[in-house]
Amino acid sequence: MNRDEYLERLGATAETPEDLFEHVEERSTAGRTHYVLTAARHGVERGTVIVEETETIVRGYPSIPRILVLDPGVPSFFEDGETVVVEEKLDGFNVRIAAVGGEPLAFTRSGYVCPYTTGRARDRLPLEEFFATHPEKTLCAELIGPETPYSTHDYEGIDTHEFRVFDVRDRESGEPLSVADRRRLCEEYGMSQPRLFGRAAPSDAVGPTRAVIEELDAAGREGVVLKSADGEELVKYTTETQHHEELAYAFSLPFDHGRDFVFSRIVRDAFQAAESDADDDRLEERAHDLGESILRPMVSTIRDVKEGKTVGERHTVRGDPETIGALLEHLREQSLTISLESDRREDGERVVEFVKVAESSRDRIRYYLDGGTRDE
Amino acid sequence: MNRDEYLERLGATAETPEDLFEHVEERSTAGRTHYVLTAARHGVERGTVIVEETETIVRGYPSIPRILVLDPGVPSFFEDGETVVVEEKLDGFNVRIAAVGGEPLAFTRSGYVCPYTTGRARDRLPLEEFFATHPEKTLCAELIGPETPYSTHDYEGIDTHEFRVFDVRDRESGEPLSVADRRRLCEEYGMSQPRLFGRAAPSDAVGPTRAVIEELDAAGREGVVLKSADGEELVKYTTETQHHEELAYAFSLPFDHGRDFVFSRIVRDAFQAAESDADDDRLEERAHDLGESILRPMVSTIRDVKEGKTVGERHTVRGDPETIGALLEHLREQSLTISLESDRREDGERVVEFVKVAESSRDRIRYYLDGGTRDE
Repeated sequence: MNRDEYLERLGATAETPEDLFEHVEERSTAGRTHYVLTAARHGVERGTVIVEETETIVRGYPSIPRILVLDPGVPSFFEDGETVVVEEKLDGFNVRIAAVGGEPLAFTRSGYVCPYTTGRARDRLPLEEFFATHPEKTLCAELIGPETPYSTHDYEGIDTHEFRVFDVRDRESGEPLSVADRRRLCEEYGMSQPRLFGRAAPSDAVGPTRAVIEELDAAGREGVVLKSADGEELVKYTTETQHHEELAYAFSLPFDHGRDFVFSRIVRDAFQAAESDADDDRLEERAHDLGESILRPMVSTIRDVKEGKTVGERHTVRGDPETIGALLEHLREQSLTISLESDRREDGERVVEFVKVAESSRDRIRYYLDGGTRDE
Repeated sequence: MNRDEYLERLGATAETPEDLFEHVEERSTAGRTHYVLTAARHGVERGTVIVEETETIVRGYPSIPRILVLDPGVPSFFEDGETVVVEEKLDGFNVRIAAVGGEPLAFTRSGYVCPYTTGRARDRLPLEEFFATHPEKTLCAELIGPETPYSTHDYEGIDTHEFRVFDVRDRESGEPLSVADRRRLCEEYGMSQPRLFGRAAPSDAVGPTRAVIEELDAAGREGVVLKSADGEELVKYTTETQHHEELAYAFSLPFDHGRDFVFSRIVRDAFQAAESDADDDRLEERAHDLGESILRPMVSTIRDVKEGKTVGERHTVRGDPETIGALLEHLREQSLTISLESDRREDGERVVEFVKVAESSRDRIRYYLDGGTRDE
């Protein structure tokens, strides 16, 4: 690999190729070697992939900062004179779909090619047609619905899973289309997108965004991404429901996710409460719900372990048998322990229910239930 | 300092003195040099102090492990045939009082000599008399009550502060007296001790301990330490009230303590709930209280910062003016920012109300309230 050349093409701020490339992982994927950046460094996003055989760079998706208060969070994030576009943020799995050597692949946030998501994307999205005209673009999409190998959030009207394209970027530079251009392009190809709620000047966007958040919260949905009209500046803000749902997930597997998740979600909730919960009843209701989100799933998992049940993330996936097989192998390659709960055929598709076994939670809980001690 | 000699006297498992002593901090205290072990290493407790001039070693107090379930936590922690003694664990400040060169000093957990605690201990405990007969002993005591520079938990009948001696150990080896000997000795000198609830065989101790915990919980008290009769084995177990009180404290200063405190307290509460909260109403009540303990103090601190109020730990201390002056100097030497809220004389004593300013919480909250973003 000509590292100097890639350093330049990436526009990295590293002084020497070694600075950047020492955190690169080599993976063999679909018969080619993928060099994957495992952490954001020197202005290059985590999950950026270099495929040497095809000389392709697939830029990682940037991490989106979050504001904790809408006022003055929104007007202080955007420049005066910019237009803020409010779109829905969906609770699913973030994938980048790009053509490598003419072949569309779906990359996870951390730069793995997921065979299942790739298969489903080829099935559900007009990829051949799109990449024939736009070979240098990356489709950034959320895989949502109750039947995916990564997330299970239910959306009204989605029985299994669907894609929503929320961004179209230059594959190599990561440069986004403007929101208007992206929406037009997706419509042209019949690709679904997240809802667009409106546009406003930064100082006028607070009230409408708050109203949108209340509506999404009531519907049990995640939140919004606020974008500058040119698509360059992105910032997110989420609902109470989402904070509590994430806590419930984390504490259902407390020794796998609890410690990492808990503080940040509480911080989000507390700032939202300080800004939005004007009366004490509202604050009390939020506090009670917060406590239930934390305690109930954890107690329930402790009891499951006591009864010898399998604990972990439960997922259902459906697709052609080959893709499902490749998915299970892919997950196992990532050192996950997969327990198959059911495996059947339905309308020619293989439908598998599996659990990503949460070994840390199972083992720690077992240890404490047996009388093990803790040093704190 | 003859490091080989101290290594041997400490009975450390380190291969070379360097292994142990590279984590030693040199402090000038009361005109002498104190070498303080800042972390537990090689079988030697954190806060162990070597005073070279007097050739004294003051052993650190051991970290007490915690069980998360009483059954089988208690019987599996203790050997069959041992007797378990149940004593109250008090919510205050753990100090060791030892005579160095004939002079009684109060050491904090991390090995600092606290001038205030030293002064109060000399005032409240018969130290001269005790150390005249037992110069090689360390009194391990909890400083409790609403008026201390470190903790504020209210105990019925304590207007300002008092000491409770919960352990008497060999100053150098850390070897404890048996519980019976220690209780007798303390009674002989008129030194107060934590309540003793009873003794039982390990397998018979679960039920009575659970009853004690329920009683302590209802009274808003911390919990118990279970000890083998010889004083060698110690294990602790705490009440729901205590978990929630600690969370409320941590989230009143979220960016100083929240992240460190939150997960461990939730873990304690969830295992206790899984073991003790048989019916769903009880679990719901605990969950609601947990949520309120986390959210209300944090929202209240966010609002205080918004209104420009001083946020931090608030303490009141009283004593002779010299000691109070030395305390404030001692706290400032530890890089704490101290804000004096009131300063008056009462019956010849100086009474000071001060705040240990929580700068991280104040600054982070200010930043987010101004619209600052978070990368997660």
